[in-house]
Amino acid sequence: KTGEMAKLTQLIDNDIFRAYATYATIVLLKMMLMSLVTAYFRITKKAFVNPEDTASFGKGENAKKYLRTDPDVERVRRGHLNDLENIVPFLGIGLLYAFSSPELSTALLHFRIFAGARIIHTFAYLIPLPQPSRGLSWAVGYAVTISMAYKVLKTALYL
Amino acid sequence: KTGEMAKLTQLIDNDIFRAYATYATIVLLKMMLMSLVTAYFRITKKAFVNPEDTASFGKGENAKKYLRTDPDVERVRRGHLNDLENIVPFLGIGLLYAFSSPELSTALLHFRIFAGARIIHTFAYLIPLPQPSRGLSWAVGYAVTISMAYKVLKTALYL
Amino acid sequence: KTGEMAKLTQLIDNDIFRAYATYATIVLLKMMLMSLVTAYFRITKKAFVNPEDTASFGKGENAKKYLRTDPDVERVRRGHLNDLENIVPFLGIGLLYAFSSPELSTALLHFRIFAGARIIHTFAYLIPLPQPSRGLSWAVGYAVTISMAYKVLKTALYL
Repeated sequence: KTGEMAKLTQLIDNDIFRAYATYATIVLLKMMLMSLVTAYFRITKKAFVNPEDTASFGKGENAKKYLRTDPDVERVRRGHLNDLENIVPFLGIGLLYAFSSPELSTALLHFRIFAGARIIHTFAYLIPLPQPSRGLSWAVGYAVTISMAYKVLKTALYL
Repeated sequence: KTGEMAKLTQLIDNDIFRAYATYATIVLLKMMLMSLVTAYFRITKKAFVNPEDTASFGKGENAKKYLRTDPDVERVRRGHLNDLENIVPFLGIGLLYAFSSPELSTALLHFRIFAGARIIHTFAYLIPLPQPSRGLSWAVGYAVTISMAYKVLKTALYL
Repeated sequence: KTGEMAKLTQLIDNDIFRAYATYATIVLLKMMLMSLVTAYFRITKKAFVNPEDTASFGKGENAKKYLRTDPDVERVRRGHLNDLENIVPFLGIGLLYAFSSPELSTALLHFRIFAGARIIHTFAYLIPLPQPSRGLSWAVGYAVTISMAYKVLKTALYL
């Protein structure tokens, strides 16, 4: 059993795997932050979607008026969904990429650019910055993921 | 080749990896259940979104009246999306956490609390239970994921 | 360090892992394609959701009229969300399944049917094909994932 545990430990000692672990965790934490931003805007803008969430504001019509959509809440939610759509492919393809024997420096370049692009994308979405800020930051993260997918398929293709 | 296969087998023999595999599969199956619950409410409440789904109810206005939103369907869909937003981080961070040499008992504690919190969250959302049931169960799962992320970054940080 | 790198390389030399890597990457690329299809319909149908995206169409009311929902855009978005809901479980459960020592031929069967079902699902959703095309292709992918989850729990169960 100690031997097996050692093997798991060895994986986390690998620099490429450590880099993947670091950047995957960073982008996931960034994505999780969107939940808190949504909650913040729901509370400050008093815009809820579930009747049970407005019970503390009183009963009947008094509480019902807080069951509404708010542009700021919806904006954060769109940013959150865009994160899901883009970070899920990064997680899956990035893990496989880490096992496809890339150069450490090349792997770091991919992970850093992706994480940077998604952080810029979030600011571009939430502030919001004028286009094409959001579009470009989205496209950069997308291109990085495609590049990693190409390496995975080149290394591992088994249909 | 036998040697490599053995290596893959050894991973599944590791207790921490097995625990992760078990709880990751449980929460994913729970999330997949939301699709069936959505389908159940769409059919029983006759509330569809795609015109081709109402074709069996007849043509024209007769079928069109079933293209509508229903509060119960929307509630399940929100629960499903909340699962995606929270279970994706658990999957990614939890896997990396399993490779960061945690104590088996600590890892089990994290996995069990997360799975329990998400199951309670689903009941709190679908019944629905009065707040703060849903909010608290969400926060517990969120905190467990943050705790695992902290261990991953402490063990693996490579920027 | 060379020893560890070799170990990572060995994983990608394993046929089952390579098959998983291939099909996981294929379904993720397919899912990523939905972003481009959404963008294509948003631009050709001039149906946007963020005010900053319509700035190039002029100011005030002139730009505001393009902030609208379009049935084709919404259809692609529903297909994209359905991908997320089904491909995330495949990614997680499929990876664990690859480590649960399945027969290579059985694993390939699971991966191929899932990928095929999701590709058919996308065509069924976007064209759209009459039901039960979309329902059946969804159910096939769902059943494959359940089958893999069963193998994972049978092999790894550690509660």
